[in-house]
This record gives sequence, C-alpha cells and structure tokens, in this order.
Amino acid sequence: MHDSLSLQLLGEFIGTFILVLLGDGVVAGVSLKKSKAEGAGWIAIAIGWGLAVTLGVYASAFLSPAHLNPAVSLGMAIAGKFPWSSVIPYSIAQILGGLLGGIIVWIHYYPHWKETKDEDTIRGVFATGPAIRSYGMNFISELIGTFVLVFALLTFTRGNFTDGLNPIVVGVLIAAIGFSLGGTTGYAINPARDLGPRIAHAILPIANKGNSDWAYSWVPILGPLVGGALGAVLFNTIP
Amino acid sequence: MHDSLSLQLLGEFIGTFILVLLGDGVVAGVSLKKSKAEGAGWIAIAIGWGLAVTLGVYASAFLSPAHLNPAVSLGMAIAGKFPWSSVIPYSIAQILGGLLGGIIVWIHYYPHWKETKDEDTIRGVFATGPAIRSYGMNFISELIGTFVLVFALLTFTRGNFTDGLNPIVVGVLIAAIGFSLGGTTGYAINPARDLGPRIAHAILPIANKGNSDWAYSWVPILGPLVGGALGAVLFNTIP
Amino acid sequence: MHDSLSLQLLGEFIGTFILVLLGDGVVAGVSLKKSKAEGAGWIAIAIGWGLAVTLGVYASAFLSPAHLNPAVSLGMAIAGKFPWSSVIPYSIAQILGGLLGGIIVWIHYYPHWKETKDEDTIRGVFATGPAIRSYGMNFISELIGTFVLVFALLTFTRGNFTDGLNPIVVGVLIAAIGFSLGGTTGYAINPARDLGPRIAHAILPIANKGNSDWAYSWVPILGPLVGGALGAVLFNTIP
Amino acid sequence: MHDSLSLQLLGEFIGTFILVLLGDGVVAGVSLKKSKAEGAGWIAIAIGWGLAVTLGVYASAFLSPAHLNPAVSLGMAIAGKFPWSSVIPYSIAQILGGLLGGIIVWIHYYPHWKETKDEDTIRGVFATGPAIRSYGMNFISELIGTFVLVFALLTFTRGNFTDGLNPIVVGVLIAAIGFSLGGTTGYAINPARDLGPRIAHAILPIANKGNSDWAYSWVPILGPLVGGALGAVLFNTIP
Repeated sequence: MHDSLSLQLLGEFIGTFILVLLGDGVVAGVSLKKSKAEGAGWIAIAIGWGLAVTLGVYASAFLSPAHLNPAVSLGMAIAGKFPWSSVIPYSIAQILGGLLGGIIVWIHYYPHWKETKDEDTIRGVFATGPAIRSYGMNFISELIGTFVLVFALLTFTRGNFTDGLNPIVVGVLIAAIGFSLGGTTGYAINPARDLGPRIAHAILPIANKGNSDWAYSWVPILGPLVGGALGAVLFNTIP
Repeated sequence: MHDSLSLQLLGEFIGTFILVLLGDGVVAGVSLKKSKAEGAGWIAIAIGWGLAVTLGVYASAFLSPAHLNPAVSLGMAIAGKFPWSSVIPYSIAQILGGLLGGIIVWIHYYPHWKETKDEDTIRGVFATGPAIRSYGMNFISELIGTFVLVFALLTFTRGNFTDGLNPIVVGVLIAAIGFSLGGTTGYAINPARDLGPRIAHAILPIANKGNSDWAYSWVPILGPLVGGALGAVLFNTIP
Repeated sequence: MHDSLSLQLLGEFIGTFILVLLGDGVVAGVSLKKSKAEGAGWIAIAIGWGLAVTLGVYASAFLSPAHLNPAVSLGMAIAGKFPWSSVIPYSIAQILGGLLGGIIVWIHYYPHWKETKDEDTIRGVFATGPAIRSYGMNFISELIGTFVLVFALLTFTRGNFTDGLNPIVVGVLIAAIGFSLGGTTGYAINPARDLGPRIAHAILPIANKGNSDWAYSWVPILGPLVGGALGAVLFNTIP
Repeated sequence: MHDSLSLQLLGEFIGTFILVLLGDGVVAGVSLKKSKAEGAGWIAIAIGWGLAVTLGVYASAFLSPAHLNPAVSLGMAIAGKFPWSSVIPYSIAQILGGLLGGIIVWIHYYPHWKETKDEDTIRGVFATGPAIRSYGMNFISELIGTFVLVFALLTFTRGNFTDGLNPIVVGVLIAAIGFSLGGTTGYAINPARDLGPRIAHAILPIANKGNSDWAYSWVPILGPLVGGALGAVLFNTIP
C-alpha cells in the first residue's frame, strides 16, 4: 500500500474497474444473445465473480489496500484498521472504477446488445435486481451477505487482503457467497459494484435498454453498508 | 487456538454457523423456486459445500481447532490429539451453530419458501435424506464418507486444520467427498450439520414445510460417528 | 517417504485405494440411476478425478512417494529417480489398492446398481472404455495422455509429488488431462486405475453387470506404460 | 530461466505446445461428436483453458520465462523486462509450438473428425472465430482482453510468471478472461495460440474440414499485439 492517498485512490479505481469489468463481463457473457458463453448459468457467474474479485485485488495491491467496496472500507474503519477520513474518498474512487468497468463492458460486448431484446437481461448485466421483489427482505439479504463478507474478511485476513494467498482466499469467499447467498438478490454486497455500472447503464446509449430501476437502487447500497458495519461490530466484540 | 474452553466453544459455534449458513444456503439457492441459482445442480452443491467448510474453518481458526463436526472431534480424541472431556461440549456448540445457520438460511431465503411447493425440497435444504431409503446401506454410506474424511484429515494435517493452506485442503476434501460419495445420502458426514438445521426445520414456521423425517435422523448421526471413529483407529494402527 | 519398502507399498496401496474410491465414485455418482449427482456430467468427472488424485497423493505422502500409477513408477525409474527393482512391487500394490477401491465403490452405491439397467454404464464406473472403438487410435490416445502426464510431472516436480503445493498441482494436471484429452477413451492414463477395479467388476456379484470387456483391457495398460516411458525419455534428453 | 537463447526458445516451444494441446484439446472434447466430454460447454472451456495455460507455464518454466504468447513477449519488452531482440525469435518458437499442438490434437481425436459434420465446429477446435462477425468490434474485443491480460500479468507478477504460485495465478487470470470476456471472439488473446493451430488446420487432411477463415485471421494477431502493448504502456505510466 502506497503512502500517498492519491495513489491509493488510483489503486482502488483500477481494482474496482477490473472487478466490475470482469464481474459484469461474466454476466454479459452468460446472458447476452449469441455470446459463446450464453447459457453457462449460475456456476459460471459464481466462479467468474470470484475470479473477478481476486484479480481486482491483485491489480490494486501495489497501490492500495484493495477494499474495492465502500462497505468494506466502512467496516475496516469501524474495526479500527482504516482512517475514517478516507472512507468517502475511497468510496468515490470505487464507484468511478465501477462506472468505467460498466462502460468497457458495453464496448466489449457492443454487437450483442442489439441482439438481446429483454430489458431485464440488459439491466442485469450492469446492476443487481431481486429474484422476488420485496424491499424489506431484499435489504436483509444484502445485509446478511455483506455481514458474512466483512466478518469473514476481518477474521481471515485481519484487514490485510493482499499478502500471500489472501487475494485468492478473498475470491473464494466471494464465490462462496455467490453460490450460497446470491440466489435472492444477485449479491451486490458492494455499493460501488452496483451503483457505478448502474450509472453507466443510465447514461450510455445501449441498444434495447429500458429503465435503470432506480427504485431498487438503494437496497444494494444501504444493505451492504449496514451489513458490513454489523460484521465489523461483531468482530470488535470478540476477544 | 485459544486456551479458554469457552472461547474455543465460541469458535466452534461461529465456524459451524458459517459452515451451515453457506452449506445449506447453496442447497437453498439451487433448489428453491425463483432463486437465481435454481437448477445449478450437483456441481454447484459439491463446490459450494467445499467452499462453505473452508470458510467455516477460516472463521473459527482464531479461537478454536475448527473441528466443526462431532465426528471429527471424536476422531481427534481417539487419535490422541484432543481431550476426551471436550468432545461433548464441542459437539453441543457445533449443533447450536448448525441450528443458528439453519435459522438464518430461512430468513435469507424468506420469500422463496412459499413459492416452493415440494416438502422434500424444503426439508432437503436443512437436513440430508437418502436417494434410495435403506437404513442399513444409508448408514454404511455415511460411515464410508466420514471414514474417508477423518482418516484423510488426520493423514494430511496431523490434526491441525488451520495452518497455512490447510483450510483450503479441507475444503478440497469435502468437495471430493461430495462429488464422489455424496450421491447416495447427500453426505451429511457430520452430525451437527444435519441435526442442527433439522431442529431449525422442526421449530420454524416455514411455509410449505412437511415433517422433519426424524425416522431417518439417526443415520447422519451414528454413521458419521462410527465412520469417524474407524478412520481414527486405522490412522492409529499405521506406524 | 519411508525407508521401509513394505511401508512404501502400504502407502501406494492406501493412496491408490483412495484415488480409485473417489475417482470411480464420481463416475458412479454421475452415472448411476437415482444418484443425487446423476447427470452432473463431464465437468463433475474431470474435477472429481482431479480431486481424487490430489487426495490420493496426500493420503499416501507420509509413507510413499505417491506414484499411485505403474506408468509413473516406470517413468520415474527411466528418469533415474526411482529404483528399477521397486517398479513391479509398487505396481502390484497399486493394482491391489485399485481393486479395493472398486470393491468399496460397489458397497457404497449398493442400492443403485439394480436401479441401473445399462451394462455399459455399470462397467464404465469401474473401467474405462473407448468413445469410438479403434484399438490403434485408442492406444495412441492413452499414450498421448500419459506422455503429457509423466513429462509434466517430471518437469513440474522433479519427481517429488508430495512437497508443499505439489499434491494440488498434480490434481490440476489430472483435471487438465481429463478436460482436454479425456473425451476419446475416458483417460485411464494409469494401468492400476483401470485393471484393479476391472478385476473388481469381474469378480463381484454386481446387479445388472455384463462382461468386463477384457478385449479392450490391454489398451489402458500398454498405452499408459509406453506413453509414460516416452515422457521420461524426452525429459532425459532435455539439458 | 536458462541463459542460452536456444534453450529459452525450446522452453517457449514446449510450453506453447502443451498450452495448445490442452487448450485446443478441451474445445475438441467439448464440441466433437461422440466425445465423452461433448456438451460440457463454456464452463469446461474456460476452466480447461485456464488449466492449459497453468500447465504450459509449469512445463516451460525450467528453461524459459514462460511467455507462451507473442503479445506477452512484446508487452514485456515495452515494460523493459525483456530484450527487444528476443521478441521475434520467441514469437516464432511460440507459433511453432502452437502448430505442433494443433497437429497432436488432430491425432488424439482422430476418429472423431469424420463423425463431426460441421465445418465451423472443426475449425473452432483450432482457431478462434467471432460470435458476431464485425472486424472492428472483434478487434476491439481482442484488444481489451489482451490489455487486461498483459496489464494484470505485469501488475501481479512484475514479469516473473514462474515463481511460487504464479503459474496458478496466471491460469486463474486466463480462466477469468475466458468467463468474462471470451463470449465475443473466443478470446485468442495470443497470436501464437491462434495462428499456430490455424496453420495446422490448413495443412492437415482433417475429415470434414472447410476453409481456415484466413479473412479473420489478422484479428487474433493484431488485436492481442495492440492490446498487450497498451497494457504495458499503461503499466509503465503508473509510479
């Protein structure tokens, strides 16, 4: 991790860019029409997102602590492992990285959008949505998933995600949450992963796109923040 | 591993909670109606359970030896690597962790239970059941699976599951048993993993749930205990 | 690795037993009727066999060099890393381990054999067979697969399969050969893995079993031995 | 890495041979008729190619730096980690390795070509092709994929692909690119991986083969070279 806050923010920006490019990329590959990966399903998504986060951590590790997630930055601050003053700047860099990731996914799969007629499928590449819409229970799902994420990250790594095998263990954790807790809301568990590319969806001239479902957008922001905070609080109470 | 028995028990409780939350979670994700992971099948289940156990070991490692399984605690005592007096308290902490895991799975997937009409599917999220009911052969299946588990754990790790790569190797072992020996009884290979969430199934007001199949419940308790004991006995006989 | 040849042979026996129990087990799980893993397909088989070999290596590592394969023992002798006098005893211990593995798979899946009416499916749990029968090309397929196996094993590990991460790398190699070269003959690449459980198939009273296809049985013996020898010869020629 | 350029070239030749044998092999296994792996789909392809590259790196590591890819050699030269004078010789060795890999895949799956009637399927085993033909966007897809590859390789490994866990991390990166960015063009991201076996396709008497689609062949050459160069340039600009 670099001493300079600017370079740390650059690291968070790069890492979250890679995370969203590869993470939204696997959803695009699996769900867009005529993609060679079309139909590969949930196993591909869960593994692909795990790999995406591992690579995001590796790609940012030489500059930043590789949070790549405002809920993680918040949790680390609560756990006393990260300065409170950096939470907001980190979160902004992470959201901007997610925005750029969404833009490059759009370019990468450019010929496939107009082949894909379903608005929900297209929005689903960029932003999460609920399997069964129920704001209260969706909020609780995101809370539980991010609680597990932050509590486990603190327990396993003591707040250091980048040493040795840790980037791989972090990806294993993301894959596990995807397999086990992702079926309800698509496991944002990260406000930047959801808000950044949702903004990309809103502003880009994507063929066949519908609305960006802003009514739901608070769930994958607040759920992860509250869940991450609770995970850190619990960690603090254990001797 | 902490010196205090209370903190060790807390570790076993937390680790088994994570193990069952993620393990039963992947079964819920794959089998409940309208889940985004619906239909991902046995590959998802075998990988998901392997990841769940790896993460359970990581999550408890700072407090306890991460047995997370009464059959493992029994085997470690037989192998002389664990005090006999701790086997019962550990087992109780593990079952309670499994119970809490089952409860949180119920909350996490709350809107999906009433969409799922099949009682066997719902019970199957919480407790194992046989592919072909035959108590004798089902008992032998659980015995063989847990024999492999405990013998391999002792051989690979010499009783230390938490050092270095070992949590990942333990998960690899669980995934292998799932792929190769799980098709007959759903591989409980752990009394706490089965009894804890079966109690959750029995006491919770789950929509569309049927009975908890207590007639079968002794198989995933006794089979693992006998198999684990035999694995430890064999290990003791090898120079 | 133990000094005593008897204990080395015990290690090879145990390791090949675990390898075949888990390896044939995944084929049984995926292909027998009413198994919970039925239909999980080639991905499960390729991953499952990789895990099986990793665990076989771990399970034998405290006693033996974990060849678990006569073609590997032969290759190691050619490469000057193993005494020629031990090749035959090792091979016998490996075949006996494979035989026991086949027997326990039969017991483990006992109720499923009579549900499965297809002779080829039942034989396929125990012994490999060709996708398209053509003894010459089948022999070459087994030769190529085992050439890659032995050359890569020597290159990666210098003949030491059990240190550090090597058991996992060996499993990765097996999984790769399964995914990439297994489609033609089911990748025996190991005479003991094929002959041992083929003998089990021949002598056990398995419901619905047909003949043991002894006409083909020389292919997965000679192909691997020739391929493994060539892999070791090529390795010797490189500076 | 060996001091002698000739031995380095031998290493690149061997490594790219293994990479293409196993990589094209998994495509053959999944797509050729009557293969036991037929229909295993994109998950098998993405995992299989990741494993293929990991094993290619391991197999060449004792002689060469394991670039196995002209776009990587170019990127390493731009990053100042590799002599410019070696880029062309390395590229030739890599293409020749890919050519041999394609030839051995043809032999390995020999009986399956005449069972497979679709020309595109057969060409697809050897060379990549676009999901939606659009030379401009296909070029950009290959550029983006290889940009991620080279930037990430430099970031993670500082140009050393062969130490410790790095061969596995490199395979993880390839698998991630396959899952997330492969759906558009089949992710050549490597001129040697595409040109070498495309030449094999052109010169071999493969049953049912059609033309080798030379009109497209510049895309998986130029796209990766430009993308790899840009990845290295970006890496150079970061402090």
